[in-house]
Amino acid sequence: MVDLWTISEASFEPRRLRHNETVFTVGNGYLGTRGAFEEAYPGDQRTTFVHGVFDNLPIFFSELVNFPDWLELEIILAGEHFDLAEGKLLSFERHLDLRNGLLTRTLRWRSPAGRTTRMEFRRFASLADVHAACLQATLTPEDYSGKIEFRSGLDGGTDNLSFKHWDWLGQGTEDQTCWLHLRTHSSQIEAAMAVRLQVESGAAVATENWDVHAHPTLACSTDAEPGQTVRLEKIVSIFTGRDTQDPLSAARKKLASLTGRNWDALWREHAKAWKEEWRRCDVVIEGDDEAQLAIRFNIYHLLIAGPRYDEHVNIGAKTLSGYGYRGHAFWDTEIFMLPFFTFTRPEIARNLLSYRYHNLPGAREKAAENGFKGAQYPWESAGDGREVTPTWVPNPNDRTRMIRIWTGDIEIHISADIAFAAWQYWTASHDEEFLVERGAEIILETARFWASRAEWNQKRGDYEFKDVIGPDEYHDHVDNNAYTNLMARWHLRLARSIVDWLKEHHPAKAARLFEKIDLKEDNLERWQQIADHIYRPVNPKTGLIEQFEGYFKRKDVSLESLEPRNESAQSLFGIDGANEVQIIKQPDVAMLMYLLPGELEPAYAKVNYDYYTERTDLTFGSSLGPSIQAIMATRLGTPGQAYENFIRAARADLEDVRGNAGDGIHGASAGGLWQAVVFGFGGLQISDEGWTLTPKLPAHWKRLAFKFVWRGEEVKVDLKGEDGAGH
Amino acid sequence: MVDLWTISEASFEPRRLRHNETVFTVGNGYLGTRGAFEEAYPGDQRTTFVHGVFDNLPIFFSELVNFPDWLELEIILAGEHFDLAEGKLLSFERHLDLRNGLLTRTLRWRSPAGRTTRMEFRRFASLADVHAACLQATLTPEDYSGKIEFRSGLDGGTDNLSFKHWDWLGQGTEDQTCWLHLRTHSSQIEAAMAVRLQVESGAAVATENWDVHAHPTLACSTDAEPGQTVRLEKIVSIFTGRDTQDPLSAARKKLASLTGRNWDALWREHAKAWKEEWRRCDVVIEGDDEAQLAIRFNIYHLLIAGPRYDEHVNIGAKTLSGYGYRGHAFWDTEIFMLPFFTFTRPEIARNLLSYRYHNLPGAREKAAENGFKGAQYPWESAGDGREVTPTWVPNPNDRTRMIRIWTGDIEIHISADIAFAAWQYWTASHDEEFLVERGAEIILETARFWASRAEWNQKRGDYEFKDVIGPDEYHDHVDNNAYTNLMARWHLRLARSIVDWLKEHHPAKAARLFEKIDLKEDNLERWQQIADHIYRPVNPKTGLIEQFEGYFKRKDVSLESLEPRNESAQSLFGIDGANEVQIIKQPDVAMLMYLLPGELEPAYAKVNYDYYTERTDLTFGSSLGPSIQAIMATRLGTPGQAYENFIRAARADLEDVRGNAGDGIHGASAGGLWQAVVFGFGGLQISDEGWTLTPKLPAHWKRLAFKFVWRGEEVKVDLKGEDGAGH
Repeated sequence: MVDLWTISEASFEPRRLRHNETVFTVGNGYLGTRGAFEEAYPGDQRTTFVHGVFDNLPIFFSELVNFPDWLELEIILAGEHFDLAEGKLLSFERHLDLRNGLLTRTLRWRSPAGRTTRMEFRRFASLADVHAACLQATLTPEDYSGKIEFRSGLDGGTDNLSFKHWDWLGQGTEDQTCWLHLRTHSSQIEAAMAVRLQVESGAAVATENWDVHAHPTLACSTDAEPGQTVRLEKIVSIFTGRDTQDPLSAARKKLASLTGRNWDALWREHAKAWKEEWRRCDVVIEGDDEAQLAIRFNIYHLLIAGPRYDEHVNIGAKTLSGYGYRGHAFWDTEIFMLPFFTFTRPEIARNLLSYRYHNLPGAREKAAENGFKGAQYPWESAGDGREVTPTWVPNPNDRTRMIRIWTGDIEIHISADIAFAAWQYWTASHDEEFLVERGAEIILETARFWASRAEWNQKRGDYEFKDVIGPDEYHDHVDNNAYTNLMARWHLRLARSIVDWLKEHHPAKAARLFEKIDLKEDNLERWQQIADHIYRPVNPKTGLIEQFEGYFKRKDVSLESLEPRNESAQSLFGIDGANEVQIIKQPDVAMLMYLLPGELEPAYAKVNYDYYTERTDLTFGSSLGPSIQAIMATRLGTPGQAYENFIRAARADLEDVRGNAGDGIHGASAGGLWQAVVFGFGGLQISDEGWTLTPKLPAHWKRLAFKFVWRGEEVKVDLKGEDGAGH
Repeated sequence: MVDLWTISEASFEPRRLRHNETVFTVGNGYLGTRGAFEEAYPGDQRTTFVHGVFDNLPIFFSELVNFPDWLELEIILAGEHFDLAEGKLLSFERHLDLRNGLLTRTLRWRSPAGRTTRMEFRRFASLADVHAACLQATLTPEDYSGKIEFRSGLDGGTDNLSFKHWDWLGQGTEDQTCWLHLRTHSSQIEAAMAVRLQVESGAAVATENWDVHAHPTLACSTDAEPGQTVRLEKIVSIFTGRDTQDPLSAARKKLASLTGRNWDALWREHAKAWKEEWRRCDVVIEGDDEAQLAIRFNIYHLLIAGPRYDEHVNIGAKTLSGYGYRGHAFWDTEIFMLPFFTFTRPEIARNLLSYRYHNLPGAREKAAENGFKGAQYPWESAGDGREVTPTWVPNPNDRTRMIRIWTGDIEIHISADIAFAAWQYWTASHDEEFLVERGAEIILETARFWASRAEWNQKRGDYEFKDVIGPDEYHDHVDNNAYTNLMARWHLRLARSIVDWLKEHHPAKAARLFEKIDLKEDNLERWQQIADHIYRPVNPKTGLIEQFEGYFKRKDVSLESLEPRNESAQSLFGIDGANEVQIIKQPDVAMLMYLLPGELEPAYAKVNYDYYTERTDLTFGSSLGPSIQAIMATRLGTPGQAYENFIRAARADLEDVRGNAGDGIHGASAGGLWQAVVFGFGGLQISDEGWTLTPKLPAHWKRLAFKFVWRGEEVKVDLKGEDGAGH
């Protein structure tokens, strides 16, 4: 029987090292640790990220910092270093149990001198106690007796792709433990980790404490006979200056509190916590094993990235699982990942939206710097909510040129995307406290930005947004991107309705908020007036929306004519060349129709879907494309189109279809996949009035079951493939 | 009596930490190690560079790699870590003995718990065996008895200003030794170091081998009573893949060969080697202690930077003593530092010029890439002689802008500077083998570059060099820089005379060379023709040279009007603003008159000297300026101007007059200082016919004595201040 809860690797393929490190990441919403081997392997990325711990660097401005390596474990077998790059690997398998995030690796290895050892490695990052993680190594010599040595501690010399962020503050070691205290170089965030090692063996175990600077290490040794098992357990605690004033004491105290409990005790609570997660979040697909495993894999990665106890952090585009985009958060969170949390783990959605609330100062600063009012959210956001999009990056082909990245300057739709997510959360949760204390301020301050950014076009008699980048980033410096314009229109109108609601339901708090942000009645009138006159580029005859002004004049190149290819249209045409053709990186008009179906006459939907579908680079364009395309195809296209794009999103990281999964999980694709199942095939749609379900299951699906939370109540949906309805 | 051989620091000033690390660098022409403390101090730069070991990095393309830290020594006194940032420093002094490069630090420290220890640290990098270095720590508890612990090994986790270059290859430890084997990440240069630790004590000494990954460490402990001395000796060996196929074996073998000899034996040979250096290179100045000490200090830094056994490396602008310019070499070597070597250590000069010979392929590649013929040397040169000038650097004040560095594109005079240095070396040494086998090819291939770079100006009927940067970098993209034009003219003529000489003296070898580089008679005719018609911007009435076309039309701002200031004219005016005024960064026309006195009518010298002197930013412009200005002032200005600029150069690093000595020794200033003494005050001038001496000693100097080598013979010069002549 196929195990639909386990991601497995049946043999060791060094060329997939980086990809599988991403896939086999363990985490708990506080930290994420890539699936590097305990004993190290050439070219591995031994990486642990902790939410919110950013530090400065050139070009990218800020990045998540790679923590001291808690996985490290040198194993010396009768004098020989265990090393997969040497000797002979007789068997190897690796499994990630999605039910509980347990990563297991079992292997048999014959050393260069011919000694054979059976080994099993297990690890998990506790979901019940996010400051704790645990690993276990179980070794059995098969055909020799000899000394088994372990060396393991905390390596503070870790770097981020060669760049070092840590300054040393202190360390120590006593008995079976050691600890390390560091601080990030620029952002001055302290971090402390503590470790306890315990070795069980039939023979006596000797431990030495090697207190080497920045790398305190415990060296344990014992003797073993053939068939005798030696087991090492390593418990780790971890705290940062973001969690507590004194992270070193906290880490040492936490480690001490775990004494005597170790793996088994930690494991029970951890597994229980995971059980509860899956009770709330699981999606059951019958009749399609690949889809079943993929949706659980993607949900797993969303769950280990979602901050449970911290409302000052966001999820980076590549979660906590790789260096891509350096941990920066984009609209990927609000538009792609957040719906999953909003509908299954609203507490986490609230934390993520609160991050935006707490970072309003940075967004206000950005608006002011650009000469606008209100709050303009950064396109890329890291620790403090300031804009961290790289402005210039080296041109890999010509050292005398640099490439200017414009998204941080003019991809302004993110402010509406965040407002949309706040509205969606509010609509689904009716979390009044959030709306009143935080959400409203986000929505109103970003609305104010739109009003100041809009320009009056005297000739045409309407408001417009010039010089922007829409979701389709193949085209930059465009005027009146339909997505941007109509999201802004909706946003300005939303602001008005939020104000009315606040006044009606919380008049005193509303008055305080309006005073705080200096919001007057004439602001609202002006917003209304702008919203009513924003340029809306719909051809009244055909119903076709022009993605931006002049888009239809760009060269209409057939995507098919580019096949076969294994790179994006932009890399084929070049940045300038891609600007000149109609091929788009990802759904843009279709994205608008997805988020705001009410903004366009229903009769016009199909013509737009068809026109843009054949011009969208769904294979090598944005990884954000396929899931949304799948949803829109479910509504407007063919079942084949829907499933093709769904499965493309499902494979994004499992199959590494874009060749960059080594940089980390495509978080937006993971969140989009959940939306494709629930909003696409499941057909869930919501409005202020409530939710509706219009399922359209792929023909071969026998069953689709999921849960969602609607205003505090859990709704169970269980759809049968044959009749395609009913819950 | 004042010690005129020792640089001393009488107390510990943390704010001068970086500056003094540069000043107290030890080295041997193979490696350079900054004067960081053995026990580490917050903010220190624990840096060892080895000539030729470069690796790639963003923005700067290539940099010298910081080696594993061999200085590291943790000291634990009765349980307390020795740390100057804690406890009380009762006394402190540090001395660098220039006679032999011995760095000594003595101090008394009272621990936080009140224990007082007297310590002495000594170190040297062997000049007799450049693959060996040695340090010693001598500790005497004054008022306590207890355990004295040392932890020391090789820290492979070192970085270059946060950037890591090393990949780990292997390590080990046994008995009193440990070793480490690494490879640079991009350039794939291997390096290996080995260490032996020996502790002498009245009591027993216990040693543990802490074989921690990338940081093998020896942990020694012993007991001491008050007044009892404990001494640790650490011997280090170091090899790279540039020295040998198997650097690890070489390092371990070298260490083994030193067994039992340790400090004393190594020291005797080292001190002997230094004695011989000073016998050849010392400059004696009587009547001016500051000048005496400064000239020795600067010669010391030239001597520890000069490669004795490697003809594939150059000396970076900041020697091996700091991160400034990332170890890149400029014309600073050939025009400023090389004369010292040419006239006192011609073997080292030959190595340095051979570096340029071996890198002719890179220079040919650069010429070809730019559409020219022959060889165009890179403005900044690192491991392989390709251009490594940064093209774009971040603008510190505006993240949306980058600054384009143009020197790598158009500061082309370096090709003539290198030819000049080759000519100077040839003239002084008559090293025929060098000229025939290497020098001639340098001179001819760079001459060919000039011929292809020259443009015919139809209107004026002459050849010109447009769009260049001269020595004065405040003005870029200028046409017909006088220095560039006339150096090129001289260079093209030199090429002709070298060809004639070769044909006459080595006809067979000449023919082979001309065939190899495809040099024909009509090339030579064309070179002659260009040389005879290069635009020469001398005003025939006044004799004034215009530094470049249009210079006289730039705004004539008085330098005095900017006083008081503590920054350069360029930083006051901005890059664009400085371009628009006549203030220059360093001698440019004067530099030309210095190098090629024969290229200008003697009657015109003074008017040019006067005009440009008052427009040269000698205080905060280029550190290359004062020494040359001192020489020209000796010849054309007042004794006051001469000495003022001489002493400014003398203080460049000792007094940190520009605030950037922490980035490394100003190698050009050091070499310029020697020239100011020998060519300026000493009045040495050379030509094909021989040398002349026209001394003009500063009034208060009682004696100036130096030696130089002329065509294999040592010439001793001993000048008395009173009569100012005679040797």
